[in-house]
This record gives sequence, structure tokens and C-alpha cells, in this order.
Amino acid sequence: MATLGGTVKKHKVAIIGSGNWGTTIAKVVAENTQANPDLFERDVRMWVYEEQVTVDQQQQKLTQVINTKHENVKYLPNIPLPTNIIANPDLIDTVRDATILVFNLPHQFIARTCDTLKGHVVPFARGISCIKGVNVTEDKCELFSDTIGQQLGIYCGALSGANIATEVALEKWSETTVAYDPPEMDSRHQTPVGSRRGSESGEQKALPAEYPTLSHSNIKKLFHRPYFHVRMVHDVAGVSLGGALKNVVALAAGWVDGLGWGDNAKAAVMRVGIMEEVKFGKAFFSNSVRTETFTEESCGVADMITSCSGGRNFRCAKMSVQEGKPIGEIEERELNGQKLQGTSTAYEVNAFLTKEGKEQEFPLFTAVYNILEGNKKPQDIPDLIEDRSNE
Amino acid sequence: MATLGGTVKKHKVAIIGSGNWGTTIAKVVAENTQANPDLFERDVRMWVYEEQVTVDQQQQKLTQVINTKHENVKYLPNIPLPTNIIANPDLIDTVRDATILVFNLPHQFIARTCDTLKGHVVPFARGISCIKGVNVTEDKCELFSDTIGQQLGIYCGALSGANIATEVALEKWSETTVAYDPPEMDSRHQTPVGSRRGSESGEQKALPAEYPTLSHSNIKKLFHRPYFHVRMVHDVAGVSLGGALKNVVALAAGWVDGLGWGDNAKAAVMRVGIMEEVKFGKAFFSNSVRTETFTEESCGVADMITSCSGGRNFRCAKMSVQEGKPIGEIEERELNGQKLQGTSTAYEVNAFLTKEGKEQEFPLFTAVYNILEGNKKPQDIPDLIEDRSNE
Repeated sequence: MATLGGTVKKHKVAIIGSGNWGTTIAKVVAENTQANPDLFERDVRMWVYEEQVTVDQQQQKLTQVINTKHENVKYLPNIPLPTNIIANPDLIDTVRDATILVFNLPHQFIARTCDTLKGHVVPFARGISCIKGVNVTEDKCELFSDTIGQQLGIYCGALSGANIATEVALEKWSETTVAYDPPEMDSRHQTPVGSRRGSESGEQKALPAEYPTLSHSNIKKLFHRPYFHVRMVHDVAGVSLGGALKNVVALAAGWVDGLGWGDNAKAAVMRVGIMEEVKFGKAFFSNSVRTETFTEESCGVADMITSCSGGRNFRCAKMSVQEGKPIGEIEERELNGQKLQGTSTAYEVNAFLTKEGKEQEFPLFTAVYNILEGNKKPQDIPDLIEDRSNE
Repeated sequence: MATLGGTVKKHKVAIIGSGNWGTTIAKVVAENTQANPDLFERDVRMWVYEEQVTVDQQQQKLTQVINTKHENVKYLPNIPLPTNIIANPDLIDTVRDATILVFNLPHQFIARTCDTLKGHVVPFARGISCIKGVNVTEDKCELFSDTIGQQLGIYCGALSGANIATEVALEKWSETTVAYDPPEMDSRHQTPVGSRRGSESGEQKALPAEYPTLSHSNIKKLFHRPYFHVRMVHDVAGVSLGGALKNVVALAAGWVDGLGWGDNAKAAVMRVGIMEEVKFGKAFFSNSVRTETFTEESCGVADMITSCSGGRNFRCAKMSVQEGKPIGEIEERELNGQKLQGTSTAYEVNAFLTKEGKEQEFPLFTAVYNILEGNKKPQDIPDLIEDRSNE
């Protein structure tokens, strides 16, 4: 039980993942555990997939370099890290006693990472997934936060916004959105009360009363910085969908821009895209999705604007129109073997919508698919998305 | 009364104004009166402030040139106009028998134009104002559509969107928003039923039943083209405010971009700006303003995106930071004697908010004013708009 003077324990935070974005978020979080010693333990453990790096002409372990030089020389070079980030090559050791788990690794590693973690996380721990995107197949559309939450039997929220890792690392100002909406629990009975969309699971355990509550206010304190403004919402699905579907819209914006149609046409594509995101969310995650997540938050409108300004999906689509070449050819030339997220998401979303019989209700997403397939041309976009209903 | 086979009269449309945007809208409207002969008379009269122009080395009247060459050589050169646009130098003759009046002239001419028109418009005519902006002084914030409506004793709606006249004239695709929400009338008693924010006035007369109704569907048919997609809304104040306040936000976006803070910071400024527009609308036009007008429509989010991408307010603000010069100096150099709308609107809005005691509730608008005044620096924006409330 909490004593009158305050709670007796503090939250221990672990970061799962140490790439460009993972290390950046670890920096943000470690600054905040220092700034809020009443809520959080100072040290933040960060799981690092161990590898050898060459530093000062010597082969060294990446974890050692991070812990001695306080710099992730491989994935976030030239950014000094707080000394209270403790790199750890052992996944299970990283999460030991941690009550807050921040997931930030490439989505293809989620399943095996959770397999390893299963049974080793604190039963009342809470997760936040910073992994962009959703898992869409013909049969389902699943949030990564749900995958994590279900595999580990914990509640998992999500963080997404108009954030480029390097810029956040350089402390250039941006905003982000954190969605966090655990089921209400009665701590004495340790069972969730009610049911919400999210990683709901009967296994979830209530946070013991000796810990500070994980209210929106306290979760915000873990991520908010003067250069990284956090807004808290409840809509985990909306936050996750925005980060995935914007890439499909960015292709259309790039095509339209490549045609020389100007900023108005590009803005129109973005507006229509935001509204299709809302419709998609309401159609397939209706319990929790709120329009405002897409239209008013960084994870929605702002991330859309950024992705349609200079993101790689936008740029490659634009070049493909300007040069009259298939986007696959541009992708190969420009991305050094990496793949465009927008094209794969467009195909996945189309397969899912077709299966659901809802292709026609999402004319922009469907137009992008048909243009990728060569059935339609970028010039057809206005006609394809024209609203002919009379109001 | 309407006969069973349909209505017996058609709407006659007049355009008041023939500048770049006025002529463009006349083109759109004249294409649509041709396309919808059951609703509208084919010919569209356009009031032209008469002047001499040199064509084929001869001095000619601009109205004659428009009516013979079907081109507005002075204000919209190289765009062929529909032959059913009839330029008319006589304001009163232009609106004779017109049941739909489209206002599209510089705002400083509204008062004297309405003075001339007073008593000469069809009493049951309806207006649509395409004039961007609102009239803000220390004492009030007034919509141009209201000014027009009140002076003429008619209902007046508004059209605004992410539209650059020249691009619309070239039939490059864009979207726009038309707000139209006349009070419901009982045609037998010819008095408005109920009361709505807008150009409400006891003088307004109901449309006689022999005319096609001016429903959203029919108003849409007057403006919607394959290259100019219209969405109809009810919120006249929201549509008008978006077109004015975005210029203030564009200054902040320009400064932030000039600092090299990247697309994320710029998108954050836009997002915050949209939310302050909503707040402004709800604070001062609460009866009718809807959040969605700003967050979901072309006149809101899309116009904001366009203005913060390449508009003159954005560009001048960006240069002022990059070159370390006052924005007034850049304005003088770049705009050829023209004035930035953003700076004057920022001052007007600040005077109004100060008088209302609400400066603190609009931190971005207030930040822009203080930066213009030299009290704050662009670098201070994140700190000035940071939300320190805990949720």
C-alpha cells in the first residue's frame, strides 16, 4: 500500500532495441528519469543486439562502447548519450524488475524477441511500442502493440508522431503522440475491469499500490522534453494506423507532385488520405478509434504532412512520374536495397480491403494500388476519388 | 408554386469582381451553368471595373476584350474563357434579376460596392463570398459574408480552399469548401425561421417556389468541376476564419523552417496552428463553428498546408531568419510594394485578443505577434507554445 508521504517504489524502465530510433528514445527517456527521480529509477537499461564495432582502430563490443564512450557509434553517431543509459546484450537481464518496457526494434524482430521475453517480464509491467506501422494481411489488421501485449500478457500502448530520429536526437523540436489506455483494474483483485480494444488480456496484472500510478501525466513525464512535446491520447489503434497508412498516401502525393499539379493538389491528396485513415480505423477498430487522433494529433495530420513533404515514399513516387519509370526501378536505384514501405502497405491494405469487400469505400487507397499495378495512371486520381454523391 | 414537372424558373448567376480569382471562379461557374441547364440560365454576367487595355496595339475597353476575345487579358491572360461569360461594366445592370451573386473582389472594395448595389439586388437573392479573410479590429471580428449579407439584406455564404487562382484556371486539380447555411424559411410568410450565425437578417426573403431550391446539392453543382472538387459544409465562420488565420501560422512555419529545424517542426507548427484556429472560432463564433471545418476540410487543413509550403508569408518569414533581417525589409524587397497578409492579421488578431483578455489562450498567435514586435525570437516558439498542463 502507498504510504501517506508517497509511494515507496519507483518505476524501472527498459528499452528493447538500440537502432537509430531506439537509441534516440533511450536518450529522451534517460533524460527524463534523471529529471523525475520521484517517479523513475535513474538508470535505464537498453537491450543491444551485440556486435563488434571498430573504434579507435580496435574491435570492441557495441555495448561496451556505449557504456564507456556514451555514444552509439554504429546507429546514432556523434550524439552524446546520457550516462544513465546502460547497454545490455542480454535481453532477459535487460527487463529484469522493469515495470515499463519501451519497444523500439524493427517489426520483423518482434515475434522472436517476445518469445525470448515470455515469462521473464514483471507480470504487472506496462509496455509502450514505438514501432511504426501495423501488421496487415489478407485476413487481419493487427497492431504491433497488441502483438507484444498478447505475447507477454501485459498492457502495451504506442508512441508515434512526425519524428525523424536524427532530428529528435539533435534536439530539434518536434511533437509526438503517446496512446495509453490500460483497462481499469482493481488492484486488490488483480483483474482487469471492463474491456477495451488494445492488448486486452485476462493475464494482465494491476500495478501494485506501492508504485506511482501510471497515469497519463506520469507517462507523459517519461517522454516529454522541451524539444519533444508529447500529447497523450487513449486511442492506440489510431496512433498506430496513422504511422502505417500515411506511407500509402505519400505515394499518391508524390505522383501528383510529379505531374506538376502544385501544392493545392498535394494538399488535397493529404486531406483525402487523412479522411480515409479515419474511415479505415472506424471500420476495423471501431471500439476505440477517434477521428481526432488522425485530424488533430502529431501521429496523424503532422506525420502525414512530413511524409508527403520529403519522405522516401513521396520522393520515389515523384521521381517515377517525372522520369516516366516504374517506381520499383526508382526504389532500387535510390534506396540501396531497402524497400519502400508505402508500396508493400498499399498491397497489404488492398488485399485486406478486397477480402472485406470494402475496396470501393477507400477510393484513394484503392487508386494507389491500381496505379502500382498499372491498371490506372496518376492522372486518374482526381476522377477516381471524386465524390459524386449529392449532399 | 412549383409545377409537378419541375420548377419553371432558373437561377441567374452574377459574378461581382473580375480579377485573377474572380475571373477564374467565373470560368468555373460558367462551365457549370452550361452543364446544368435545368438549374441555371446559361449566361453568367461578370462585373468588370472598366479600364483601357492595349490589345493588338490598340486601346480597348477590358469588357469588350473579354466579350470578343473571351480572355481576361489583364488579370487572367492566356486562359480561354467560356463564351457565356458576359462582362459588364455596370454594377447594377450586372446583378439585375440575378438570384445568385458570387462576390470575388478585393476586400477594401466590399463596402462601396455594396453601397452601390443596395436596393438593386433581387430581394430573395443568395450570395457566396469568395473573398479570403475576415475583418478583425480591436473591437470585433467580422466575416465578409456577414458584411455583404447585412448591407444587402440577403443571405451570404462563403467559398474558400487550398486554391491558387492560376492553377485552378489551368484546370490543375484542387479541392475547395463551400459553406452555405441560410436560415430555414417558410416561403408563404417570407420570414426566416429560427436564427443562425451568419448574415442573418429579418430582411431576408424566401426563395419563391418556382425556382429550383438552393440546396447543398444544387449549390455544389454551381462550383464543382472534375478539376475543382467541392465539399459543402454549413459553417460559414469556420470557412472564412481558416483563410485568414493560416497566414499568421505561415509566418511561424517560415521562421521555424528558416532555423533549419526540419519538416517535423514545421508540421508541428501547422498542427498547433489548426488547433488555435478551432479555438478562435469556438471562442468568438460559437453558434456555428465546427472543429471539422478546420481539421477535415480544404479551407482548413489543406489551405494551411499549402500556405506553409510555399506561400509568400511562409517564404518571407523563412528568408528573414535565414538572412537575419527584419521581415519588413524582406517584404519590401520581395513583394514589390505589396504587403504581407500574415503580419497585418497577426497585429489585428493580437489587438482583438488583448481587448478580450484572451492572449494567453492563443500562445502561437501571441508568439507570432511578439516575434514581429521583437519581444521574442523564433527560437522561443517551442517554449512559448509548450503545454505544461498535466493531463
